[in-house]
Amino acid sequence: MNFAKSIKQNKLQNKIFTELKFGLEKECIRVFNDGKMATTEHPPVFGSKIENKYFKTDFAECQIELVTPVYNSIKECARFLCLLHKILMEELEDEMAWPHSMPPILPASDEIKISNYDSSELGREANEYREYLVKKYPKKLQLLSGIHFNFSFDNELIGLLHKDLNSTEDYVKFSKELYLKIIRNFNKFSWLIIYFFGATPTGHESFFNEKIKHVTREIDFSQTISLRNSIYGYKNLKKFTFDYTDTDKFQKSILKYVKAKELYFEGENYSSIRLKKGDSTYLEVRNLDLTPSSTCGINFTCLEFVKLLLIYSLVTVDYELTSELQINYLENSEKVSMYGKNTNISLVKNEFEESSLKDWGLEIIDDMTELLSTFDIPKNDLNNLRERRDDLQDVNRIVANKINCNVEQFISANLSNAKKFCQSRNDFSLFGYEDLELSTQILLKEAIKRGLKFEILDRKENFIKISNNKKVEYIKQATKTSLDSYISYLIMENKQVTKEVLKFADINVPKGKKYLSIEGGLKDFEIYKNEKIVVKPKSTNFGIGISILDSSHNYLNYRTALELAFSKDVEILIEKFIEGQEYRFFVIGDKTEAILNRVPANVLGDGIHDIEQLVEIKNDSILRGENYQKPLQKIKLDDITEQFLKKQNKDKQNVPKIAEVVYLRENSNISTGGDSIDYTDLISEDYKNIAVKATQAAKATISGVDMIIKDITKPATRENYSIIEINFNPAIHIHCFPYRGKNRQLAKKILDKLGF
Amino acid sequence: MNFAKSIKQNKLQNKIFTELKFGLEKECIRVFNDGKMATTEHPPVFGSKIENKYFKTDFAECQIELVTPVYNSIKECARFLCLLHKILMEELEDEMAWPHSMPPILPASDEIKISNYDSSELGREANEYREYLVKKYPKKLQLLSGIHFNFSFDNELIGLLHKDLNSTEDYVKFSKELYLKIIRNFNKFSWLIIYFFGATPTGHESFFNEKIKHVTREIDFSQTISLRNSIYGYKNLKKFTFDYTDTDKFQKSILKYVKAKELYFEGENYSSIRLKKGDSTYLEVRNLDLTPSSTCGINFTCLEFVKLLLIYSLVTVDYELTSELQINYLENSEKVSMYGKNTNISLVKNEFEESSLKDWGLEIIDDMTELLSTFDIPKNDLNNLRERRDDLQDVNRIVANKINCNVEQFISANLSNAKKFCQSRNDFSLFGYEDLELSTQILLKEAIKRGLKFEILDRKENFIKISNNKKVEYIKQATKTSLDSYISYLIMENKQVTKEVLKFADINVPKGKKYLSIEGGLKDFEIYKNEKIVVKPKSTNFGIGISILDSSHNYLNYRTALELAFSKDVEILIEKFIEGQEYRFFVIGDKTEAILNRVPANVLGDGIHDIEQLVEIKNDSILRGENYQKPLQKIKLDDITEQFLKKQNKDKQNVPKIAEVVYLRENSNISTGGDSIDYTDLISEDYKNIAVKATQAAKATISGVDMIIKDITKPATRENYSIIEINFNPAIHIHCFPYRGKNRQLAKKILDKLGF
Repeated sequence: MNFAKSIKQNKLQNKIFTELKFGLEKECIRVFNDGKMATTEHPPVFGSKIENKYFKTDFAECQIELVTPVYNSIKECARFLCLLHKILMEELEDEMAWPHSMPPILPASDEIKISNYDSSELGREANEYREYLVKKYPKKLQLLSGIHFNFSFDNELIGLLHKDLNSTEDYVKFSKELYLKIIRNFNKFSWLIIYFFGATPTGHESFFNEKIKHVTREIDFSQTISLRNSIYGYKNLKKFTFDYTDTDKFQKSILKYVKAKELYFEGENYSSIRLKKGDSTYLEVRNLDLTPSSTCGINFTCLEFVKLLLIYSLVTVDYELTSELQINYLENSEKVSMYGKNTNISLVKNEFEESSLKDWGLEIIDDMTELLSTFDIPKNDLNNLRERRDDLQDVNRIVANKINCNVEQFISANLSNAKKFCQSRNDFSLFGYEDLELSTQILLKEAIKRGLKFEILDRKENFIKISNNKKVEYIKQATKTSLDSYISYLIMENKQVTKEVLKFADINVPKGKKYLSIEGGLKDFEIYKNEKIVVKPKSTNFGIGISILDSSHNYLNYRTALELAFSKDVEILIEKFIEGQEYRFFVIGDKTEAILNRVPANVLGDGIHDIEQLVEIKNDSILRGENYQKPLQKIKLDDITEQFLKKQNKDKQNVPKIAEVVYLRENSNISTGGDSIDYTDLISEDYKNIAVKATQAAKATISGVDMIIKDITKPATRENYSIIEINFNPAIHIHCFPYRGKNRQLAKKILDKLGF
Repeated sequence: MNFAKSIKQNKLQNKIFTELKFGLEKECIRVFNDGKMATTEHPPVFGSKIENKYFKTDFAECQIELVTPVYNSIKECARFLCLLHKILMEELEDEMAWPHSMPPILPASDEIKISNYDSSELGREANEYREYLVKKYPKKLQLLSGIHFNFSFDNELIGLLHKDLNSTEDYVKFSKELYLKIIRNFNKFSWLIIYFFGATPTGHESFFNEKIKHVTREIDFSQTISLRNSIYGYKNLKKFTFDYTDTDKFQKSILKYVKAKELYFEGENYSSIRLKKGDSTYLEVRNLDLTPSSTCGINFTCLEFVKLLLIYSLVTVDYELTSELQINYLENSEKVSMYGKNTNISLVKNEFEESSLKDWGLEIIDDMTELLSTFDIPKNDLNNLRERRDDLQDVNRIVANKINCNVEQFISANLSNAKKFCQSRNDFSLFGYEDLELSTQILLKEAIKRGLKFEILDRKENFIKISNNKKVEYIKQATKTSLDSYISYLIMENKQVTKEVLKFADINVPKGKKYLSIEGGLKDFEIYKNEKIVVKPKSTNFGIGISILDSSHNYLNYRTALELAFSKDVEILIEKFIEGQEYRFFVIGDKTEAILNRVPANVLGDGIHDIEQLVEIKNDSILRGENYQKPLQKIKLDDITEQFLKKQNKDKQNVPKIAEVVYLRENSNISTGGDSIDYTDLISEDYKNIAVKATQAAKATISGVDMIIKDITKPATRENYSIIEINFNPAIHIHCFPYRGKNRQLAKKILDKLGF
C-alpha cells in the first residue's frame, strides 16, 4: 500500500502532521530525601490504583505511573504530564520523585514491595501478574523506569486513506495493517532514538550488585548510552520473534508463546514498539529513557522526533521483517545502547548489508527529510531532523554525553534534579489551566487527584465535564452543578424573592421595601432620613450597584445611591442597615462547611515603612493577584483609599506604628484587596444551622449565605443576626486559601456530594 | 375601651381604613340553560371539595361555594371572586351559575342531592352534618345563597391598640374583645345593610310551595326587600340569645345550646355576624344578598359600606346587648326585610325608644359620617355614606327597588343575567392577571382550579409560589421550576456546550465551529462560501442575533451576519444550515407532551382583499396581541416583510388569489406573527424519543427541543433529523392555544409533575 501517494492524492499533506493523537505514560520511583527508595505506600489520596486514570503504580509499590489522557498535540500531553508531576509533588511530603530511569539507592530485593492492589477482580489479576513477574525476573530490574509514548492517527484520516487504498478490507483491519507497517519499519530505525536520546549511561551500585548474577561481562561505562535498553535492562528472557506479515499472523505468533507458557499474556512482550487497543488501536513506543535533567523527565524534542519516525515508518518503503532481522535489529539497539558513543560501530542494515552507526543514521535522516519534505512538514520538525543530523556528526551533542555520567555522583546529581522538581509544591494553581477561575482550578485539581476523566467544555465560562465509568457531571464555575435546582438560582438571583422565601421559612432578613422608580424612592426619603440604610439593585451579584448610607446621609447622597442602583436594574431595594460583622457561610447540603469573615483592605504597621510601601509588601505575596485566578486580590491605592485615609487624617506617606492596623477601605470585598479570615471553628452550630435552613428554604444544595452577626459569642436570636443575601455561585477559593485559617477542602466536599 | 381616642393618640387615623383584611365567600346554584336546578355533580376538575381552597360546595351538590383568599383590599377580593366565577364559567359546559340569592326552578325536595364528600375524616364529618341539616331544615331553604364578607384588622394595628389600651389582658383575648364590641354594635345597625342592599324581594314559586308549610301568613311582595333575611329565609328554628358581655361568657352561652342539642355545633348559629377563627380571628358578616344584576353578584358599594359599618361599630359607644335587645334587633331585620320599602315602619332602637326606619337610619348615617370624619376617611367612603343618606330619603334608590321584582319574570330575568356572566367563557387569559406572561396565566389558572394556594412573588418576573398543605414550589415563567437543575439551564444557555452534550449522547447536531473574533470568522469565509449557513451568538434566546445565509451569500452578507452575532455575545457559532421543517418538542420528564411547527407569518388570499387588509383581518383575532400575553402575535408589516414580498414580485397592495398562501417573512418565530400548528399526533414515537433523550442528556426535566426534520413520514435516522437547540424556558401557551390543533394541557402536566 503506497501511503505516500494516497496522502498526496487526498491532499492530506498537512493533516499527516496534525491529525494525530498522543498519550504519555511515565514511570518513576518515589524516594526519600536521602536518595533511598521509599518504602511507604502509594499516596492514599489517589484512591484506587486500578480506577484512578492518572496516578497508578507499576511493578513496585514505590513505582508511580503517571498516565495522560489522549491529546492532539505532544505539547498538551507533556503539559498534562507536568501537571500530574506537580500534583504528585504536592502530595509527597517527605519524599521526592526520582528523575532517572535507573533506580535510586535500592535495598535488598526482598525489601522491595510489589504493588498491592485491592480485592476487585482487576486488582486480583494485577496482584497475580506481579507475583508471576517476581518469580521470573529480578525485582530490581523491574524498577527501571521510562516513558511510554502512545501514538495514533485520527480516525478520519485513516478513514480517508482506507477509502482511497482499499475497498475490500474492513476499516478496523485496515487500520491495524497500517500500524503493522509502521511497526515493521520502526523496528529497523528505533536504534536512532536510543542513540539520540538514551539517558541511562550509568546507575547506582545497589542496582548492579544483584544484576551481576546473570550477566558475565564487566561494563565499560565509557561508551554506554542506555543501560535500560541494553542487555542489562529489563528484557524478555528470550529473544522472541513474531510473524509480522499481517495482523492475524502476528497475533497468532504471539499467542503461540502464551500457549507455550513462555509469555504470561501479550503484555509480557517487551518489544520497543507494540500494537495496543484502547478506545481504538494505537502504537506504544517503549524505548524512551527519562531525561533526568529536564522537567518531569520529558524530552520534548525526543517525543517530536519519535513522532516523525513513526510517520516516516508509514510512508517509506515496506519490507519483510524476517525472524532473523528481528534479532538483528534488537541486537542493533543493544549494541547502540552499550557502545553507541563510538559512531563507527557496525550495525546490520538488512539481509545483505552492514553499515557504521553514523553512515546509516545519516542515510535514514536524509531520507526522512527528503520524503517528509514532500508533505507539509512543519518548520520545527524540519529543524529537529537537521539537529539529529548534527548529532550523528558530533557525538558530543547527544543526550547521553550531556548528562552526568559519573557513577560516584549518580545519587547527588539526581537528588539535586529531584529537588528542582519539588519547587512547584504548595502552589495553589493548576499548571496549564491558570486562565481558569481559581475555584475551577481547585475543583479540577481534586478531580485529577481522584483520577476522574474531565473535559473543558468552555474555557472562558469555566464550564467543565467530569466523569467516571459510572456517571457524568457538568459543572460551571465550580459550584454551579446538577446539585442545585434551576429555581434555587432564580430565587437567589432575585433579592426580593429571596427575602420572601427566607421570611416564609421564619429567617430574619433586613426590613426593607422595593421601588420601581427613582421618584418612588425619593418620595420615601423622609422614612430613611435618619437611618443607616443599604440601597441595592434587585438582582445583581458581587456587590455591584450597592451603596451603604450612614444615618447622617442627605437627600443628595440618597439620590445618588438610588441612581446608581437603578443604573443596574429596573427595580431596587432599600433596606435598614444591620449592624455587625458580615460572614460568608458556605453550605453544602445539610452542613455549613466553611465560614469566612472578610476584612477590608488593610496594612499592619511596623514603624518603618509608610502605607504605600506596606501595601507593596503585602501585594508581593503569591496569594495576591489581579483577578479571580489568585486567592486574594492586590490592594489598590486609588481615590477611594485616599479619601478613606483622609478621614483618618492620614495619607499614603504616613508611617503606621508597630502593630497598628490601618484600614484602607470601608467595604470588605475580597475583590478590592480585603483579607479573608476563616471562622469555621469559631462560630457556633446554631448560626451554622440557620445558614443551612436558609439554603434549604431556597431549595438549594450549594450556597453562600451572607449573614450579619452582632456578636458571635451570643446565641443566634432574632436580634443577633440577619441574612442579607444568599449566593448561588459562591467562590470556593476564598475558603481554600484564606488569608488566615485552614484550607476547608471544599473541592473534596463538592465532588463527594456529586457522588464521585 | 375608647378605641376612637386610642386610634388618634397612636396616629392611626389613616390606618384604620387601610390596614384591613378581607375575604369573600359566595354561594350560587348551578342551573341548566332553562333555569332548572342542575342535577349533575360538582365539576370533577375542582377535585376534592374539602381540599380545594376556592371551589367548594355548600349544602347541596349543585350549590357551589367560591372562596377568595384574604386580601388587603375589597377590590382585590372582588376581583378574585370574579376570576373564580370566570373559571367556573369555563368549566360549566351546559350549565350556568344562577345569579340570584333565591333559588332557580327547584325540583321536589327529595330530588335535591346534598353535597357528597369523600371518605376522608373531614369528608365524613361534612356528610354527617348535612344529613343532620336535612332532618332539621327544609332542603329548599338551604339552597338560599348569599355572600359572606370576612373582615379583620391587621395584627399590627390591633397590637398597637393593645399596647395603648391594655397591659394585663393578653393579645389574643384583647383582639377577641375588640371584635365582640363590633358584633354588639353591628347587631344593632345591621338592618341598614338589608335596607340598602337587600336583593331578594321575590323568588320562584317552586321555592314557596314547600316553604308555605311552616309559615302561615300570605306574602305581600309590594314591600319586600330581602326574603332571604326575612322569616322566610334560612334561619335557626328558634331565636337564640347569647351572653355578649365578654368572649368567655359568649362562648359558654353558645356551648350551652350545643350541649342541649339545640345546636349541632357553633357553626349552626346563623347570626348575621359571627366571630370566626382561621389563621387568626376574624368577623363573618352573613346577611348580604347576591345582587343579581351586577357582575358575579358582587355589590362593591355594599361591601365598602359594610366595612364602614364595622369600623364604626368599633369606634362608636358601647352598650349592653341584652337578650331582649338581641330579639328586638333580629326582629328589626326581619321587619325591614319584609316591609322596608315603607320607610315609616317602626324599629326598636333600645330598651326605651322606637323610631321610624328613616329617622333612625339618618341618625346612624350622620353619626357615622361625623365620627369617621375625625379619622382620615377616604373620599369615596364619605361619598358612600352620602349616597346611603340619599337612599334613606328616597326609597326608589335602594337595590330592592332597582331589580326586577316581577314574580312572573323571575326566571327569564335571571337567566338573562346568568347568560351575561357566561360571556367570559373560552377566554384564554386570567382575569386580573393579564399583565403576566400568558404561560404563567395558564399555569396559575390550572393551580386555581386545583384549589392551590398561590402568591405572586414578583409580577414583572412572573415569579410565583404555589403550595398546598404538603408542599411549596416556586415557579418562574411557568417552566422554570425545581424540576430542573441549575446546570441544565447553563448547558442549554451555552449553545456550544449544548452541542457537546448532545454529541456525547450520540444525538445528531449541525456541524459547526466556534469563533472568538470577527477576524477569525472572516478567515474561514472560503469554507462556508458555497454553503447555506446559520450564524449565531453562543448564548442568547428567542432567535436574537441569528442570521441564516443561503448558499449564494457573499463576503459582505457574511461579515454583516458575523457582526450582528458578535454584537450579542463575545463568542459565536457558524453552522451548516439543516434543510427541513423546524419543530418544537415540549418535553416533560420522559415524555414529549406536545409538538409544534411554526409557520412564518402569512395570509390566505380570498381574491378580494389585498395583503395589507388580509393582515389586518388576521390580526383582528383575539388570539393575537402585541406581547407574550396573547397566544399569537400580531403580524407586522415592516421593511423586512416589504423586502420579502418584493422577492416574490409582490407588495402589500397586491390581492392574492383565493386559497393562495402568501408568506410575509422567512423566519417562523411566533414573535414575528408566525402561526403555530400542532403536530403532536402527527410525529412518530422515535422522534419524540430523541427529544426526550436530548432533554435527559442535558439533565433537564422540562425543555423545548428544536428539531429540524426533513420528512416526518420517514424514520428518525441520523440523516433525517438534527437538533439545533434545546430551550430551558419553553413557552407553554403556544401549545395550549395553537393556531391550528389541540390544547395540549401543559399546565396540568407541569403541576402533575411538580406533585400537586
